[in-house]
Order: sequence, then C-alpha cells, then structure tokens
Amino acid sequence: MGIALQTSPFFQVLEYLAIFFCGLSGGLAAIRKNYDVLTIMITAWLTGLGGGIIRDLMLGAIPPAGVSDIGSIFTSFAAGILVALLHPEVDKLKWTMLIIDALSIGLFAVNGASKALMYNMSGITAVFLGTFTAIGGGTIRDMLLNDVPQIIRDRHWYIVPAIIGTIFTVFVWRLEQYKAISFQTEFVLDAGIVVLVVLLRLASVQFDIEVPGALQRNKT
Amino acid sequence: MGIALQTSPFFQVLEYLAIFFCGLSGGLAAIRKNYDVLTIMITAWLTGLGGGIIRDLMLGAIPPAGVSDIGSIFTSFAAGILVALLHPEVDKLKWTMLIIDALSIGLFAVNGASKALMYNMSGITAVFLGTFTAIGGGTIRDMLLNDVPQIIRDRHWYIVPAIIGTIFTVFVWRLEQYKAISFQTEFVLDAGIVVLVVLLRLASVQFDIEVPGALQRNKT
Amino acid sequence: MGIALQTSPFFQVLEYLAIFFCGLSGGLAAIRKNYDVLTIMITAWLTGLGGGIIRDLMLGAIPPAGVSDIGSIFTSFAAGILVALLHPEVDKLKWTMLIIDALSIGLFAVNGASKALMYNMSGITAVFLGTFTAIGGGTIRDMLLNDVPQIIRDRHWYIVPAIIGTIFTVFVWRLEQYKAISFQTEFVLDAGIVVLVVLLRLASVQFDIEVPGALQRNKT
Repeated sequence: MGIALQTSPFFQVLEYLAIFFCGLSGGLAAIRKNYDVLTIMITAWLTGLGGGIIRDLMLGAIPPAGVSDIGSIFTSFAAGILVALLHPEVDKLKWTMLIIDALSIGLFAVNGASKALMYNMSGITAVFLGTFTAIGGGTIRDMLLNDVPQIIRDRHWYIVPAIIGTIFTVFVWRLEQYKAISFQTEFVLDAGIVVLVVLLRLASVQFDIEVPGALQRNKT
Repeated sequence: MGIALQTSPFFQVLEYLAIFFCGLSGGLAAIRKNYDVLTIMITAWLTGLGGGIIRDLMLGAIPPAGVSDIGSIFTSFAAGILVALLHPEVDKLKWTMLIIDALSIGLFAVNGASKALMYNMSGITAVFLGTFTAIGGGTIRDMLLNDVPQIIRDRHWYIVPAIIGTIFTVFVWRLEQYKAISFQTEFVLDAGIVVLVVLLRLASVQFDIEVPGALQRNKT
Repeated sequence: MGIALQTSPFFQVLEYLAIFFCGLSGGLAAIRKNYDVLTIMITAWLTGLGGGIIRDLMLGAIPPAGVSDIGSIFTSFAAGILVALLHPEVDKLKWTMLIIDALSIGLFAVNGASKALMYNMSGITAVFLGTFTAIGGGTIRDMLLNDVPQIIRDRHWYIVPAIIGTIFTVFVWRLEQYKAISFQTEFVLDAGIVVLVVLLRLASVQFDIEVPGALQRNKT
C-alpha cells in the first residue's frame, strides 16, 4: 500500500489535494480572526503539514516532509495564498469544506498509517501515527491560535473515523503482506477506506451522532 | 539502575502504576470540563505517556514507548475508561490523588533520568529528560485543554521535587558506575528517591511552602 | 559558515548573547504575569533554547543542544536569575530590549540555517529550520503561558526578517560552497545578514510597517 501511495499518480494527486484543502481550512481559521497574510500562510502550512511532521519525528524520518518536500510545502502555501485572495467564496462553501476536510482526514489516516508500516512499525504504532497525521496539523494550529482544538470541541465523530480508517489500513496491509490479497486489491480497499472515513464523518455531522460523555449517575 | 528498572518486577509494577494514576488524573481533568469519552481517553493517554514521548524524541529512542509499548498504552486507556465510569468516586479521593500524583512524579523522574543515562547521556541531560518525563504529560494535556499548565499555576513545589529526584538519580547512578555502591544498594537508594520526591511534594502542599516570586523592591 | 559559527570566538560570543537576551525577554514575560522564580527560569530557558530544540529534533541532532550544551543552558539560566533580581531596570529598557530581541532573531536565523546546511539539508529545509530557531523559543513560551504567540499578535515584521535572513544565509553558503567567495567573505556577509535582520525589524516597528491582512473586498 505504501508503495501504491508513492507510485500511483491517483494517490499522489489525492495526497496533495488533502494538503491543499487542509491548507484552505487552516488559512480560513486565521482569516476569521483577522490575522495578517503571514499568519494565514503559517496556519495553512501547519494545518496541511503539521500532522505529518509529528508522524515523521516519531518515525525517525528525518528531515520531516513538512520542511523538506517542496511539492507539499508549495501546495500548502498555494492554498494559503488562494484563501487569502478568495476567502469570501471559500467561506460560503460550508458543505464543500466539510467534505474536503473529511476527505483529508481519510487520506491522511491511510497515508500516515501506511508510512508507519513502511518503516516497519507495529500495527498499534501505525494506528497512532496515522491518527496523528490526520488530526495533528489542525490540533497544533488551534493550540497556536490559542483555541481549544477541534478534536476536543467537536462532539461529532472527528477522531473516531480517523482511528477506524487507520485500523482498516493496518488490516489490509497485513492481508497483502501474507499474500491473502493482491497488490491491486489492497489498492482498491485503501481507496474504499478513504471513502468510509468520509462517510462516517459526514453521517456524524448530518445525523448529529455524538461521542458520549462520561457516565452520569443520579446523585443520591 | 536502568537495568533494575527494566528487570525488577517491583519497579515495573510501579512504573505501570505511575502511568495508571497519571491517566486517572488526566482523564479527570477532561471530565471536569464535560468533555466526551474520547477526549477523556486522549487526555488519560497524554498525561500518562506524553512526558515519556518528549524524553524518547530527545533521546532518539524511536518509536517512542507512548505509541509502541502495548502495556503502557493499555494501562493509560484502562485508567481513562475507569475514570469515565467511576469519576464521582475518584473525584472524592483528594489526598489519595495528591499522593498518587506525587508518586507518579517521583517514579517518572527516576525512570526518565535512568533511561537517559542508559542512552549514555550526560548528567545534565538526564536531569532535563527526567524532569520532562515527570511533568511533560500533564503540561501537554493542559496546553491541549487550553489551560495554563499546572507547573506554572501551582505555586507549591511541583517541578522542584522532580528536579531534586533526577539529580539524586544521576548521583546514585554514578556511584554504582564507579563501583562505590553495589547494584542492590542503588536499587534501594532509587526507591528512597521516589519516597523523597513524594514527601517533598506532600510537605509543600501540607505546609503551604511556595516557590518565591521575582524580587520585589520598594519603589522609591 | 557553519564552521565559522563554531570556531570564531566572535560568533560564539554573539550566539551566547542571543541566548542570554532571549532569556531576559522570556523571563520578563513570566515576571509580568507574577509567576514564581521557577517559572521565570523555565521561560528564560525555553525562550533562549526552545527554537534550537525544534531545529535539532528535525535535524536528528540528538540530544538537542538545549538539554545538553552546558554553556547554552547556564547562559539562559543566568539570564533568568538576572531578570528575576533586576526586572524593574530591565523593564525600562524598551528600545534596548527591542534591539536585543531583533539581534537574537538575526543571530538565530543565521545560526539555525547554517546548522541545517552543515547537516546537508536542502536550502528550503535550512530556511524553515533557521526560521524555527529564530522564532520557536518565543512561540513555545507563549503557548505555555496560554497567550497568542508574538509571531501572530505582532503585526509588525517579526518573522519576515527571520525568513529573509535565512534565505540570504543559504545563498551566501552556496556561494562559498562553489568557491565564488572566500571563507572570510562569507564570514563578513553573515555578519551583514544579522545587521540586515535587525534593521528590518527595527524599521518595521519605528515606521509602523505591517504585514497586510487578507484581501478585503466591497460587499456588493
């Protein structure tokens, strides 16, 4: 799968799309608070690439892609510039943004878990690092802007689909590793995981499915 | 000592206890703010294992134990689940929690400094990394929940006992290294350091001993 | 250049000065909020050495200088102690602090970018890591104190001069590498870059030059 991610133009394009749309939503967070263009660029970059930086530091993949892969860096900056110019339009695309955001969670979850597995990490480490890739950038951005991070504020399913996506990714990777499925099947299944993550996220927002709180008991 | 930490069932049990009780106090912080179960699990994990992740990244111990050691991860999650179910009871255990919290500071200080020394770090680096292990998890948790971290809010001795504990740990390690004391003596002394850290912390709360502020001068 | 930074007593003294004055401004931030002496020391250390720790983690320079180089650590602590004793005087030195702060941005930008290039990083990675070194410490400090970081609050040029400084540093490094300029010339040019960064920062504050916001359009 990891190799598929690297070699398939389809996945490559989707990965840059994830960075790009993460960048849009990151830049928009800064615009809404009336910050300057530089802050917009920083938050676009951080949201698009911050999760991957955490993953790479924990993998020992030095230097992290977020400060060295020119394509990724320029993609996030392009998103920042675009949103600085076109923010009234972008701001109107509520559902579009929600879908795009969900898509980036799905793509990053599959991508992050796969990169960890390529580095010979265990399944549980891959689940952690895939989840960090999916939600890390937005979390650092919110900490920098002094907000409570979205993973905490948003009671809808946000981190749950990411975790489910990474678990499936590990499972599919193992199937391919033990030759139970072909490389092509893995490829298709990974794409399916991305779609599943998107649907879980959107369903949770649409039907108002929330993660429950701590157990409440009657005070007697 | 490091080897003692690894090989002695006594220290192993105590280490998991430290993670467990750190996890309880971390989860409780999320419950008090009415966050959902997932946030409770995240803060339990982060408080129990976040300090060790910082230590491991700075040591180059890749991947960090906090995303790869299954025993540690499950211990922190078990603490999160338990506190989500039993929080009214846990919340009542004020002094118990304070003791447990102090114990986890002491254990993590000795454990973190020892791991750094095992990686051939200098004494000063061991003091830093031991202290990070002891107070890092709670600090990241507070930053994530958008609070001023406890190491800053709490004017009682919190980080001071951790630093003292790491300094003694380095000292005892060097004694054993130069054969001035036996391995068994080191083992006992390390246990003593944990007790010392706990006593310092509790004495500071009980007798209201505070770290002084910056020098105040009469405005003339 | 990197070697110049290491070997030249001139640059060595300036680097410690940067840490020292960063430490002063960091400690002062804690004093203004009435935090205790320990918090003053932590923020002094974090402001002086936090940026370099981020740089070193991303370079794989393990352990980071901020937890292992005794000269750097003691310099930051000395700054913390000094500001705790003399804060009314330091607080009065508004322009002096501004100049010193600008100087530390310039020095850290050149120093951070050069260290990255010494580790065979690409130019773009050197720009990122040099900028992180210059602004990272203050940013972590502000996140810890639960403030919106200065890089975001300050609409004057703050991060811009740092980025410009790192770009010039990479350019000068490449010139020396391809023997277009001598080692001595590189040395002089690097000193010039530090001066340039300081002047850009001060000019931005003096003449109120701000980074523009996102494009505003007439609502029609």
